[in-house]
Amino acid sequence: MELSDRYRMVRNRTEVICKPLITEDFVIQPAEFVSPPKWHLGHTTWFFEKLILQKFISGYKQYHSSYDYFFNSYYESLGPRVSQPDRGYFSRPSVEDVLRYRKHVDEHMDLYLSEQISEEAEILFSLGIQHEQQHQELLLMDIKYIFGFNPMYPVYSSDSAFESEEIKEKNIFIQIDGGMYTIGHCTDDFCFDNEKPAHQTYVAPFRISKTLVTNHEYLEFIEDGGYGDFRWWLDEGWRWLKENQISAPLYWRKSDGEWMHYTLAGEKPVSMKEALCHISYYEAAAFANWKQKRLPTEFEWEIAARKFEWGSRWEWTSSAYLPYPNFKPNEGPTGEYNGKFMVNQMVLRGASIATPPDHRRITYRNFFHPHRQWQYSGIRLAE
Amino acid sequence: MELSDRYRMVRNRTEVICKPLITEDFVIQPAEFVSPPKWHLGHTTWFFEKLILQKFISGYKQYHSSYDYFFNSYYESLGPRVSQPDRGYFSRPSVEDVLRYRKHVDEHMDLYLSEQISEEAEILFSLGIQHEQQHQELLLMDIKYIFGFNPMYPVYSSDSAFESEEIKEKNIFIQIDGGMYTIGHCTDDFCFDNEKPAHQTYVAPFRISKTLVTNHEYLEFIEDGGYGDFRWWLDEGWRWLKENQISAPLYWRKSDGEWMHYTLAGEKPVSMKEALCHISYYEAAAFANWKQKRLPTEFEWEIAARKFEWGSRWEWTSSAYLPYPNFKPNEGPTGEYNGKFMVNQMVLRGASIATPPDHRRITYRNFFHPHRQWQYSGIRLAE
Amino acid sequence: MELSDRYRMVRNRTEVICKPLITEDFVIQPAEFVSPPKWHLGHTTWFFEKLILQKFISGYKQYHSSYDYFFNSYYESLGPRVSQPDRGYFSRPSVEDVLRYRKHVDEHMDLYLSEQISEEAEILFSLGIQHEQQHQELLLMDIKYIFGFNPMYPVYSSDSAFESEEIKEKNIFIQIDGGMYTIGHCTDDFCFDNEKPAHQTYVAPFRISKTLVTNHEYLEFIEDGGYGDFRWWLDEGWRWLKENQISAPLYWRKSDGEWMHYTLAGEKPVSMKEALCHISYYEAAAFANWKQKRLPTEFEWEIAARKFEWGSRWEWTSSAYLPYPNFKPNEGPTGEYNGKFMVNQMVLRGASIATPPDHRRITYRNFFHPHRQWQYSGIRLAE
Amino acid sequence: MELSDRYRMVRNRTEVICKPLITEDFVIQPAEFVSPPKWHLGHTTWFFEKLILQKFISGYKQYHSSYDYFFNSYYESLGPRVSQPDRGYFSRPSVEDVLRYRKHVDEHMDLYLSEQISEEAEILFSLGIQHEQQHQELLLMDIKYIFGFNPMYPVYSSDSAFESEEIKEKNIFIQIDGGMYTIGHCTDDFCFDNEKPAHQTYVAPFRISKTLVTNHEYLEFIEDGGYGDFRWWLDEGWRWLKENQISAPLYWRKSDGEWMHYTLAGEKPVSMKEALCHISYYEAAAFANWKQKRLPTEFEWEIAARKFEWGSRWEWTSSAYLPYPNFKPNEGPTGEYNGKFMVNQMVLRGASIATPPDHRRITYRNFFHPHRQWQYSGIRLAE
Repeated sequence: MELSDRYRMVRNRTEVICKPLITEDFVIQPAEFVSPPKWHLGHTTWFFEKLILQKFISGYKQYHSSYDYFFNSYYESLGPRVSQPDRGYFSRPSVEDVLRYRKHVDEHMDLYLSEQISEEAEILFSLGIQHEQQHQELLLMDIKYIFGFNPMYPVYSSDSAFESEEIKEKNIFIQIDGGMYTIGHCTDDFCFDNEKPAHQTYVAPFRISKTLVTNHEYLEFIEDGGYGDFRWWLDEGWRWLKENQISAPLYWRKSDGEWMHYTLAGEKPVSMKEALCHISYYEAAAFANWKQKRLPTEFEWEIAARKFEWGSRWEWTSSAYLPYPNFKPNEGPTGEYNGKFMVNQMVLRGASIATPPDHRRITYRNFFHPHRQWQYSGIRLAE
Repeated sequence: MELSDRYRMVRNRTEVICKPLITEDFVIQPAEFVSPPKWHLGHTTWFFEKLILQKFISGYKQYHSSYDYFFNSYYESLGPRVSQPDRGYFSRPSVEDVLRYRKHVDEHMDLYLSEQISEEAEILFSLGIQHEQQHQELLLMDIKYIFGFNPMYPVYSSDSAFESEEIKEKNIFIQIDGGMYTIGHCTDDFCFDNEKPAHQTYVAPFRISKTLVTNHEYLEFIEDGGYGDFRWWLDEGWRWLKENQISAPLYWRKSDGEWMHYTLAGEKPVSMKEALCHISYYEAAAFANWKQKRLPTEFEWEIAARKFEWGSRWEWTSSAYLPYPNFKPNEGPTGEYNGKFMVNQMVLRGASIATPPDHRRITYRNFFHPHRQWQYSGIRLAE
Repeated sequence: MELSDRYRMVRNRTEVICKPLITEDFVIQPAEFVSPPKWHLGHTTWFFEKLILQKFISGYKQYHSSYDYFFNSYYESLGPRVSQPDRGYFSRPSVEDVLRYRKHVDEHMDLYLSEQISEEAEILFSLGIQHEQQHQELLLMDIKYIFGFNPMYPVYSSDSAFESEEIKEKNIFIQIDGGMYTIGHCTDDFCFDNEKPAHQTYVAPFRISKTLVTNHEYLEFIEDGGYGDFRWWLDEGWRWLKENQISAPLYWRKSDGEWMHYTLAGEKPVSMKEALCHISYYEAAAFANWKQKRLPTEFEWEIAARKFEWGSRWEWTSSAYLPYPNFKPNEGPTGEYNGKFMVNQMVLRGASIATPPDHRRITYRNFFHPHRQWQYSGIRLAE
Repeated sequence: MELSDRYRMVRNRTEVICKPLITEDFVIQPAEFVSPPKWHLGHTTWFFEKLILQKFISGYKQYHSSYDYFFNSYYESLGPRVSQPDRGYFSRPSVEDVLRYRKHVDEHMDLYLSEQISEEAEILFSLGIQHEQQHQELLLMDIKYIFGFNPMYPVYSSDSAFESEEIKEKNIFIQIDGGMYTIGHCTDDFCFDNEKPAHQTYVAPFRISKTLVTNHEYLEFIEDGGYGDFRWWLDEGWRWLKENQISAPLYWRKSDGEWMHYTLAGEKPVSMKEALCHISYYEAAAFANWKQKRLPTEFEWEIAARKFEWGSRWEWTSSAYLPYPNFKPNEGPTGEYNGKFMVNQMVLRGASIATPPDHRRITYRNFFHPHRQWQYSGIRLAE
């Protein structure tokens, strides 16, 4: 596909995701880890403006001098910015302003992409595309939080199939041989710096489930008193649970004796056959302990992933998010993209129903702090 | 004026205040003490629905079952509610929903007011009117905060006269005789319960300034190092100033050597002749100390107020907000209106340029915590 | 009495209070508002050294250069100091060091007092004496907290009479005439600056109870669900109670169905006839509301106090702690003694069983934040 | 050595460490991560009482019913306890009480160890011994913090050699071959559960420094503006540094232009040739980045450790603290010893000058949160 087609398609998809929103939904930030949808629209645009237009088009004039401040996320090298928990404190620029900003940048990008671009620019272009795709998933996560936090439980899309993922296969464990394996990205296709370099790792023989844990299985844990029994929990998980009075996955609540959960199609009864979603690493690890199983490492996952279906839930692994041997962050501002977050987070592998379809790779490393629940996370057991 | 005319006029004024806003402005809450404009629109409406329509119209059906939760402010007797700092976490009900809600309640109120209403209802009606007027002032305060917090400093109204108040008179002190005075509200006109009962108080002779403190006078305090000298400050004020790095009134900042302040007409150079605004009690008390003067008590203020112009700034007094002798809160839910806040707050007297014109009374007692700056507060000195 | 005798007597009493303590008790600070007994011993000594020895004895050399830092409480004019919540973070100077410091200062004071001293010095001397007496009460409060916080409930003094105060009189209300009264201190005896100047006040007729509220009466409030009914509470009181899960006076707990309370003689069953103790202003005000009575103002209290017994409990008044008309703080560092605390606190009148016997005056104004419970506070009702 | 000799020797060493302390030093807790020395004395004793005496001696009566509450550290299975940050809030049991408790338990242990004990008991006995040795190191860390926090900088031991460790060797890098290696503990000697099971790992070729980083090298980093340049820092490290105003290792300060650091022998000029100490993982990682080197993984460290000197500083590795493949926590309460902490911490390898001499193993895994500085941590670079 031509770069400009690819650009248009991805940029458009972001706006399609926002279609069901009303203006008010774009602005608020009901939790510090959530960003207002308006911010995502602006930030992804700023990324192209900052890394491509301002860099490669001589004479390009920044669209608005204060947008660096509003739309820089965490790039220390790109100057001061609104701190993450304050993103919901600004009504201006308006949604319309931001859409105009998108249009402006898109027009310039279109022009720019109509001619041959340098290799360096193409690398940054690809990063910009992947970056916007990442934010498409974040957008859905944040929209879900914004709606699911509201006691009126607004419907994002009445398409009830959305988000649901029935597990039909039997929960069998596949045997994987031990041995030396290559881990990480080794083709010429795009990947993030954290997937590289490809390297050899020894993995002992292991068994891994073909299927994700279902709501039904997780309910057994809940009903066995899992949230009240310290034996299954990491110490920090146990404290997290006590302090935040957690007793079920995010978006679940018991109403008139029935377990309900908020979905983007509205609040629904929890379907027993569907893949569990929205659990923290602490919950995933506790469940695995209770089952007398464990979570796979990210290496085991990568080795085994060709033998099972994946892609509806980001799957918690037991691996901390750390650099691969000889990891080198990108040069320049995008060196801040991944490497500086490599502490105190856990790796998730796979993809989710909220991930753009062409944004999945077997080597992809997603990562979140162990107490986060709002991503589309699930559990696959190993032993 | 007929009740229904009065009702329409006041209700309409609230919406006129919101005219310059775009949808985004209605939703956010950039500080916990601020409420989103949308919330004010809903809450004032809910007040009429809850205290009049639901009470006096048999068969009246509540507009929306969840609006109690969204729009109750602090009435324990009226059930659970969004906690104050979370009001900006909800995109729904939308601005349009809330305006529809206003229309619905207005139609029913109109119908209800077209016939003779009971004395009890009339009392609650007057309270609802005054309540909405109070929120008109809060709306302007909150809008100013929402705009003034934004580094793009949006203009609310380009009418540059708005908010400004030049002090032309000379700053002379009026002598007031000591003696027994009646304090508090004693006519049949409306007043809040906290203005009653009228009672006798002895006040020693005192002198009070005819004019408010100007920006010029306050700048002398700043330039004399007032914010860096503990001698002028209450202990809690000194700590407040250190912890929050306060070095000027709210909305002031020095830009290229010039003092600027945000006004609803945009950011402007601080005008030396205008009445100082947006200072906390701590600042007011420190300034008075530095001037070797003091703030008047609320009783002194009430006694002297016929002898000077007032109404552009709420004036901090040295009186703590406490019940008058033999104070009785209203019966029923509106008993929670004033009495339960009578601790840890200071009284302000007068009115401000943001106060609705017919919402001023010489006996009016406004009150805020001593660290609050976002009200249109000023200083009048006594000695 | 000679100054030096008075000095020795007061200084000695402080050490007598500490007699039952073991070294460990001197050091800890189990709550931020508590000070370690060691700190009281050092601070009261530093007060004499700083305000008298260093000022009036030429050539006096400070005992230890770092003691300014350790033992300054809150005097901004006397330099940097350990912040109040950190006082329990220092094991050195040791208890022995501090006792040596006391001895050193006492010897120099003794010498100094053996000759005629200036009027200025005598004023500061008196302040130092009164200051130490105030700390004697604080010492008992803090020791009680240190012991009462410990689940082993150590006994300070087995003298079971200590702290108890049976109310034998009948709970009758005395009628006091309205009129002009003189409030404040007007003799030449010592008083704090906050008791002055004496001034005229008009007080309406009122009735006030001859007796303090008993544990029995307060238990009726508890058993009537007083801590669960918002109607009796100030808004900030209600939030304080929820956030801190308060359901009884400090030191009370229900054990095997019986109400127990920690006393300096150990944990004992709550005696029904004794004067209630250790309640916050919020609790006092809620109790008064529930009883359909009110707390007296500090002026009413001062006017009526000759007509009832007082002195076993500090009595919460409904008056905020504010300066008297024409209040002038002392000159110099002791100007920070009282005035800078005149905001957000409530006045208590009387004295308590922990107050040194010659440290009581009818004009004495004690003050605490409304949520504090660890002082020996009680309730006297008015109407 | 006989068990009872080993017991006596280790128990005695704990008390020897406390010899230089005065009573006050035993009680305080100047930071939440520090424990009062008194607590260490009690907790290590309780460990033997709880896991051996109460379990294996029929009829053994607990020394004091409340000591479970005071001296349980984090064993959920052993009941409620003082929360970690509150350990310094208790003056009783006194130091003498705790020493009596030690004596009591020691006498019973002595008796018990005089006869043949079961294998199960011997395993717990060894654990108790190792546990006490771990607390000997913690004691030194906590004493150093208690003293180093005090602006009078008390001397623990004037032996100036203590803690110092001059690096004399040249800073050369050793080449280690890649290949399969066995990691973890595989002999019959004691080890903690987290060192097992031994397992195969593939490690790529690497180079590792023979020597620890010196103060001199670290000062170059400081003087190059290392603490002010975000490029070297993990994002969480950068925020930690900003929020806590960190600009040097713990215990360092610049005094009159000279770098000083607190040591247990008092405050001393920083010696350039000595091994750097008291840096957080964030600092270690930033320094390595700046040097264009990296920290070794814990596996690299274990493989290479026979080729260099180690034992004066715990060495930060780049490995997160995670279970080894097929890790099984101990059965019973000691299952809470290690496994439940395996999240959000980093592994340190080696030992320190505060580690008891017979408490070192090449497979030993120490772990701390990445922001902690008070352990005797250092840096060894790899590439």
